[in-house]
Amino acid sequence: MKIVDFRLRPPLRGYLDTIMYSQAARRDRITGFHGMTPARSAQEKSIEMLLKDMDEAGVTRGVAMGRYSGPYGTVSNEDVAAIVRDYPGRFIGVASIDPTDRRKAIRQIEDAKAAGLTGVNIEPGAYPMPLYADDRRLYPIYAYCEDNNVPVVMMAGGSAGPDLSYTMPVHVDRVAGDFPKMKLAISHGGWPWVHEILHVAFRRENVYLSPDQYLCGMPGTDEYVRAANGYLSDRFLYASSYPFLCVKAYLAWFRTLPIREAVMENLLCRNAEAFLGVRAETAARAKGRPSKPG
Amino acid sequence: MKIVDFRLRPPLRGYLDTIMYSQAARRDRITGFHGMTPARSAQEKSIEMLLKDMDEAGVTRGVAMGRYSGPYGTVSNEDVAAIVRDYPGRFIGVASIDPTDRRKAIRQIEDAKAAGLTGVNIEPGAYPMPLYADDRRLYPIYAYCEDNNVPVVMMAGGSAGPDLSYTMPVHVDRVAGDFPKMKLAISHGGWPWVHEILHVAFRRENVYLSPDQYLCGMPGTDEYVRAANGYLSDRFLYASSYPFLCVKAYLAWFRTLPIREAVMENLLCRNAEAFLGVRAETAARAKGRPSKPG
Amino acid sequence: MKIVDFRLRPPLRGYLDTIMYSQAARRDRITGFHGMTPARSAQEKSIEMLLKDMDEAGVTRGVAMGRYSGPYGTVSNEDVAAIVRDYPGRFIGVASIDPTDRRKAIRQIEDAKAAGLTGVNIEPGAYPMPLYADDRRLYPIYAYCEDNNVPVVMMAGGSAGPDLSYTMPVHVDRVAGDFPKMKLAISHGGWPWVHEILHVAFRRENVYLSPDQYLCGMPGTDEYVRAANGYLSDRFLYASSYPFLCVKAYLAWFRTLPIREAVMENLLCRNAEAFLGVRAETAARAKGRPSKPG
Repeated sequence: MKIVDFRLRPPLRGYLDTIMYSQAARRDRITGFHGMTPARSAQEKSIEMLLKDMDEAGVTRGVAMGRYSGPYGTVSNEDVAAIVRDYPGRFIGVASIDPTDRRKAIRQIEDAKAAGLTGVNIEPGAYPMPLYADDRRLYPIYAYCEDNNVPVVMMAGGSAGPDLSYTMPVHVDRVAGDFPKMKLAISHGGWPWVHEILHVAFRRENVYLSPDQYLCGMPGTDEYVRAANGYLSDRFLYASSYPFLCVKAYLAWFRTLPIREAVMENLLCRNAEAFLGVRAETAARAKGRPSKPG
Repeated sequence: MKIVDFRLRPPLRGYLDTIMYSQAARRDRITGFHGMTPARSAQEKSIEMLLKDMDEAGVTRGVAMGRYSGPYGTVSNEDVAAIVRDYPGRFIGVASIDPTDRRKAIRQIEDAKAAGLTGVNIEPGAYPMPLYADDRRLYPIYAYCEDNNVPVVMMAGGSAGPDLSYTMPVHVDRVAGDFPKMKLAISHGGWPWVHEILHVAFRRENVYLSPDQYLCGMPGTDEYVRAANGYLSDRFLYASSYPFLCVKAYLAWFRTLPIREAVMENLLCRNAEAFLGVRAETAARAKGRPSKPG
Repeated sequence: MKIVDFRLRPPLRGYLDTIMYSQAARRDRITGFHGMTPARSAQEKSIEMLLKDMDEAGVTRGVAMGRYSGPYGTVSNEDVAAIVRDYPGRFIGVASIDPTDRRKAIRQIEDAKAAGLTGVNIEPGAYPMPLYADDRRLYPIYAYCEDNNVPVVMMAGGSAGPDLSYTMPVHVDRVAGDFPKMKLAISHGGWPWVHEILHVAFRRENVYLSPDQYLCGMPGTDEYVRAANGYLSDRFLYASSYPFLCVKAYLAWFRTLPIREAVMENLLCRNAEAFLGVRAETAARAKGRPSKPG
């Protein structure tokens, strides 16, 4: 079975300047809060160790997203494209934007697509000037994405803004309702608003959920899993949120959850493929030649 | 034991024009999200099949509520009164109002009472012009209900408004606190705000909860049930939310929950009788003559 | 093992005028909602019976907090200091303030410290003029506390204000983020916002949680306990919220929870000592002489 890890930030290029690598003590403390042990590949910033872990775990591809953030740091689309190119068949790249200029943002999405990336990552609360997901300044960008079939990944959970109001699912609810044909995947799964985001995904069938690291050791696991077994079986996305959690240890933990055999392939791979409009070839097949995501 | 199903919309008159019948595919998809199978009586729009299911399940009466809604459709008080009259002993009718004119709304409640209905159903977020439950325009109507001992059913859960903010229990909390002698039953049980609405019902002893369909297959079941076994034992109201769930299959499922034997009759019948001020006679006794609810 | 009960209001002096003693029927009904039996010491307003219960349970000391409240009543710092003095080694006193005058509030904290109290209890939503925790008028007081290493206890859970908006953890989140070196303990544990306050405590490492009575019989117990066993093991504070729950019966119940042996002493004593900067001597050692808390 192929496996797509929907949130995986390798120790390469711009990622190394983001605080998930530059503030290693903070990262490792968070890892411990999840009841997990820091990944050696993260501590050593070793792409070789990471690829080996992915191989051993059977993780076919990781989704590497661009980021444009004040507090967390920035990873350019150029860097993401270079990583996808340099490690053929291992990563799927997702673009990021500067939301303060709608024309520029749309150009960034188009340029990134031309460079082999797919979809766009929007992190409203983490921008240098924090926004709510339903901020009017984002609406022309959402309109573009809906009209051009660009899947949108949104960080709306965890510490995705200056305070807890930024992750309140009402903002996502409005965006998903106002752009019903736009596919929207929620990274960090709306945590800690577990019941509420599960309602949004119940009501808005264009919403995908990826609780990633917040599935692990945090309140709500049972409820996410029940939904993944049920009405979210074709909209739940597996992700480790590496380097916060080890790709290999997290997958081993994930497999201990009471997930129905019949939906496991959906969660681990097919839903991500369907959302991104990409086929993740097996590592074996991909090894011979560069991948063509997007 | 008598059973009152606190939310049951038969396939008759105005109900057939609401989207729960006119958009059958949407309804059946939602039924599936709850892990249940669509009721044949709903699919066939057959009152005979519904009454047969009620008989077989032992459901003495269903509470049929009027509705005045933009997105969901409208069921007039006249239609509800006719249904109560046409099927003696099977339905308890609850009025609805147009909230934009307080004098007319109060007249509607009084006329409905004269026509044999009891109480009033208020659905703030679903009105053609959506309101929050604590909107000032509703306050004269609440004052009338408190002063005249009219029980108020409020839809405040599920998709009860344009977005998630309409179901935030803070609105219910304020209303219940400002009108402490008004009995207030929350349809859809404040879901997905499970912890929060359970707090409101802990604090405000005039609040009754009826999670109805959202008890089933959704996060929060365990917590609703714990409260029903405890401090909500005389304020929890059983309801199927038919036609979203089959009256018979839902009751069978409900009976599998770990509910204390000693409170079961409260949940299934007595709390509804006490809330509405109605005695639901057994079907056998009622069959011989028209019922006189209210 | 020493035990510190972080919220314990003895039947003495000003406490007797607060509604937890003056409205006994209300209090006992709430006790019943928690599935517990009223404490006889509370019903009889007997300090001797309370001390006997503390002795038998092994509760070394109770944290007695001042209060300045409209709806709940007021307990002066002078009364708290007198209680600490009159029952040496049994109580740790915490000051309260009048928040409407920042200079006076700071003087109250300083005077209370001189009188042997430690820290300050802030109850924003319960003040005669209710405030949100992040009200600007409290910010100079927080600044003083952060700069002078004064631990702040905040009631932010349960019925801690006129409505549910006052307990929304976003207010606590902002305060904890804006004063990162100020230690902040949340009484009533942010209940019913269980997931959300656990997120705040995950993100803000200066936040301590004390769900006290709302741990008992209410939704969320499992999640609080999981966090207490994990990332909150050095920031969870045991408390009975007496007289709402019996100090002895509550401790017996608490010991039935699946708490790891290795963290039990933290929860029952060490975390409170660390938070308050006080060492709770054993009752045996303290009996011979007056205690010197703070």
